[in-house]
Amino acid sequence: MLKTNKRPVLAVDLGGTKIIAAVVSPDGKIVSRKYCLTLADNGLKAVIERLLVVANDAVVQSKIDIVGLAGVGIAAAGIINAKRGVITYSPNLPGWRNVALRDIVSEKLGLDTYLINDASAAALGEHRFGAGKGMDNLIYLTVSTGIGGGIIIDGKLYSGSDGCAGEIGHMTVDVNGPRCSCGNSGCLEVLASGTAVAREAVIRLNQGETSSIIELAEGKIENVTAETVALAARQGDKLACDIVAGAANYLGIGFANLVNVFNPDLIVVGGGMSKMGNMLLSPARKVVKQRAFKLPAGTVRIVRAGLGSNAGIVGVAAYVFDQRRA
Amino acid sequence: MLKTNKRPVLAVDLGGTKIIAAVVSPDGKIVSRKYCLTLADNGLKAVIERLLVVANDAVVQSKIDIVGLAGVGIAAAGIINAKRGVITYSPNLPGWRNVALRDIVSEKLGLDTYLINDASAAALGEHRFGAGKGMDNLIYLTVSTGIGGGIIIDGKLYSGSDGCAGEIGHMTVDVNGPRCSCGNSGCLEVLASGTAVAREAVIRLNQGETSSIIELAEGKIENVTAETVALAARQGDKLACDIVAGAANYLGIGFANLVNVFNPDLIVVGGGMSKMGNMLLSPARKVVKQRAFKLPAGTVRIVRAGLGSNAGIVGVAAYVFDQRRA
Repeated sequence: MLKTNKRPVLAVDLGGTKIIAAVVSPDGKIVSRKYCLTLADNGLKAVIERLLVVANDAVVQSKIDIVGLAGVGIAAAGIINAKRGVITYSPNLPGWRNVALRDIVSEKLGLDTYLINDASAAALGEHRFGAGKGMDNLIYLTVSTGIGGGIIIDGKLYSGSDGCAGEIGHMTVDVNGPRCSCGNSGCLEVLASGTAVAREAVIRLNQGETSSIIELAEGKIENVTAETVALAARQGDKLACDIVAGAANYLGIGFANLVNVFNPDLIVVGGGMSKMGNMLLSPARKVVKQRAFKLPAGTVRIVRAGLGSNAGIVGVAAYVFDQRRA
Repeated sequence: MLKTNKRPVLAVDLGGTKIIAAVVSPDGKIVSRKYCLTLADNGLKAVIERLLVVANDAVVQSKIDIVGLAGVGIAAAGIINAKRGVITYSPNLPGWRNVALRDIVSEKLGLDTYLINDASAAALGEHRFGAGKGMDNLIYLTVSTGIGGGIIIDGKLYSGSDGCAGEIGHMTVDVNGPRCSCGNSGCLEVLASGTAVAREAVIRLNQGETSSIIELAEGKIENVTAETVALAARQGDKLACDIVAGAANYLGIGFANLVNVFNPDLIVVGGGMSKMGNMLLSPARKVVKQRAFKLPAGTVRIVRAGLGSNAGIVGVAAYVFDQRRA
């Protein structure tokens, strides 16, 4: 059997749409990878069963005996008490309240198991194997349906006193702004996420503004997504460009807050919205130059994530390796 | 001569109004303490000379030979490049731009010298010797003329890539809010500092609202300060209570942002405004319960600072001890 520090990890990414399971080696290489739909509506028990099945499939595919694994890492969306291994609340997993997922999985698989937030995992993944290699201080944001975050300080994941730090999407930046899913008003998430972009487009189309967005959505306003808006913006559609500029401005304000507070080397932006690339990031970088103090604004680089949808998987694996070494 | 790790430190707090110098022992005890006015208007050279004189006075008073000191720590207001020992910009020291104060003082005194931000120093002081003893993750805010901040992570000062992290007062919380001294709009500082409280009082008195504030300011609107407003609020004056409630609300929003992002054990509030005590902090705590996620909001305690105006002095001394040990 391999020495503990050479053994691979079983990494699981539990999202609202799908569950990915992979066996990951200490150098971040994905040995095997399987996924299935989450089908969250089927309820807690069914989801956990599907998770265990797909996890087992990934282990079988890797041809590594389960007892040869160093441990299990689970990355999940939501407010995670990483210290206790509990999903306290998850907007993507309706009905999950205070679920001790770590202990449930650990008992079923007979392996040491760790549970962290998915954006925290992605932050660690980008730090070890992606866009943030070699950086001491890094903030990761996933800008997608919502906005999640992860914080790397002195090369380590910072997860706070309960293990739920990094909820950057729920920084208030406009106290009089629209209501957020978290119950507050004017969070970064409600102003700059993919959901925000789509919502703004629907509002302005309903107000009668003309735009190619509606054609790209096949004439149906209910088909309008952030992707449709991005596509229209690329084609030079004025309304779409306006909406993207608005989201970029808010994103820039959020970045400037992070730059003033953290003075990081790097901000790494992942998630669906990051596919807009410089159409989104260039104006956001300009806002940082305008709003943040000169010294930290001159230091920080703001870049796209490098690992795509595997960031969480390799990141949570890195987390398990770190814990086993500690 | 004492062993290096038992030797005291010469600690200097360079503020816009006064310069404090003290000899501080490794257990945080102040052996001697002197101060003088900064007289910043007399210019850079004159201020540095005064700093060196008061520093020397403190050493003489301590009866410790200067060569018996472990080093010098300087805490200064402004955007400090702690890595390079440079004050890049300070609102309290007009005309100071990119002043390599660390090297200047080190050369003059012949001792290893460190330069950090004053709120960072106070954060470390409160962590080692004050309200934050034993806490892993702590955010310190000084709410005074401006709002400064310091971040303690895993028991150590987090100062970012250039050493200028912690500018919590310059988080935007209301993008459409009033203009801040930093050039932005809606920073926490422009909404919840002592300056903000006084400004709001002047505006509303000028609009003709009646209040005992003006009597407490001896009939002169130019005498109105945050202290006057606090005093009037204590006496139940409606306008004053309103203004304090407004500042407390914004402070609570700032705290909620910190709670969601950092999931800290503790937020320690110092500075002149903290003397309002629970009149300010109780409503701010309520806002945190309303706005932050339940898990981190349930963990964090929000308390007044314990060390008063000595936090910076003992904090920067602790910083030097940490550096010498590292």
